[in-house]
Amino acid sequence: MTAAASSIPASAAAPTAALLIIGNEILSGRTQDANLNHLACVLVGLGIRLREVRVVPDEEAVIIAALDALRASHTYVFTTGGIGPTHDDITAAAIAKAFGVPLRQDPEARRRLEAHYAGTDKLNEARLRMANVPEGGILIDNPVSAAPGFQIGNVFVMAGVPAIMQAMLAGLANRLVGGPAIHARTVRGPIAEGDIAVGLENIQHQYPHLDIGSYPTFRQGHLSTALVLRGTDLPGLEAATAAVADLVRGQGVEPEVLEGAV
Amino acid sequence: MTAAASSIPASAAAPTAALLIIGNEILSGRTQDANLNHLACVLVGLGIRLREVRVVPDEEAVIIAALDALRASHTYVFTTGGIGPTHDDITAAAIAKAFGVPLRQDPEARRRLEAHYAGTDKLNEARLRMANVPEGGILIDNPVSAAPGFQIGNVFVMAGVPAIMQAMLAGLANRLVGGPAIHARTVRGPIAEGDIAVGLENIQHQYPHLDIGSYPTFRQGHLSTALVLRGTDLPGLEAATAAVADLVRGQGVEPEVLEGAV
Repeated sequence: MTAAASSIPASAAAPTAALLIIGNEILSGRTQDANLNHLACVLVGLGIRLREVRVVPDEEAVIIAALDALRASHTYVFTTGGIGPTHDDITAAAIAKAFGVPLRQDPEARRRLEAHYAGTDKLNEARLRMANVPEGGILIDNPVSAAPGFQIGNVFVMAGVPAIMQAMLAGLANRLVGGPAIHARTVRGPIAEGDIAVGLENIQHQYPHLDIGSYPTFRQGHLSTALVLRGTDLPGLEAATAAVADLVRGQGVEPEVLEGAV
Repeated sequence: MTAAASSIPASAAAPTAALLIIGNEILSGRTQDANLNHLACVLVGLGIRLREVRVVPDEEAVIIAALDALRASHTYVFTTGGIGPTHDDITAAAIAKAFGVPLRQDPEARRRLEAHYAGTDKLNEARLRMANVPEGGILIDNPVSAAPGFQIGNVFVMAGVPAIMQAMLAGLANRLVGGPAIHARTVRGPIAEGDIAVGLENIQHQYPHLDIGSYPTFRQGHLSTALVLRGTDLPGLEAATAAVADLVRGQGVEPEVLEGAV
């Protein structure tokens, strides 16, 4: 492990994460991001709290400023987008500058691209850009299309194409030190949140270490509210869930009580 | 118009925007955000460039810090989420603090809630919180469920529920001063972006005022790449689009050339 990689505080009791989404196509509305939701779900399962997301355009100075803010504040930072072969793929160069290290061709990354394109004349200068990694970076496997991502310090650089991002993230789990398991319960019923708001706030005050959220939906003219409780203290979570279920029963409704955040 | 509202620089030649998404449910993975993509598409149609998005949890200090950073850097800031009746709805209070003004009950907002709940006993203290607006705020209509959003300075505060957010945004168009129309073209074909990367970069250098992006997709085993050109200079855009189409033809492929970013 390099000095850069070992800079992750392994003993962090409550690890946090941030996501930096890099791409004009998200900000212009052309593409709907799907990586935020996937990453959030995977991190919750590891006991890591995603605390902040930023979406920035393909501009070096903007990427560097956002990356520096996020990597100073969170245990882990994940980036998606901008690691392909075209001129608008500037993530690796921007991250090298942020860390103050040179960008150089990684021999193992080049070997993987050579194997992937073996027997063709496809491995041109443009595609070889995908072997460029900031000095000290550790490769992240890409089982879909070979061109790797990389980790440097507490920053994990992944592709933007969701299938590739998901495959890269799946291979990363053993590098991420999680925290205590985060449990969730949902109490759901055909009630209006405004009718139980005071009671819900009282329960939140009684269990300040839990996150309690209220999410109304209107579907086909029917109002429903999901009250979601989340935290690492399982006995407290169960007790608070029972209190919330009683609160809903006070509205003359028998709620559904579900595991997870539904 | 109040002094706060008139602080929008109406003469901005190239207006920019940022979106602040407020909600634990996005960061935990429970809810997939849909507002970013909708806002991005509406703003492009108005000639306003969405330049940055941040997602933050329901925590006052974090909301204030993000809001202050964004409102200092962009013509317009939009927020979604956190304006309901429950304890986790803290957006209005956080924004009042960010602007250094008191949060107070808005008589017109109260009147709308009274009309919406007329003939019921539903307008309790919790729901009346939805009439709280920072001093100097201007209401944003909510044709779906009455409880308004508000504008203060260059910040537009909207609901998180997509149907309500979209209705609020639709009513705002006449308050937003757009810039020159942003045009887009797409050149699409069954090519690999690595094969045309050098030629595409040359075209980008020739038209530095256009945004040119390359977006590969793999569907059912078929590779396709969309080359998207965007900018306000329509003759330049048409010329660059023709050059990109020729670049694709150099691969032995007749591309589709489409209006918009497809």
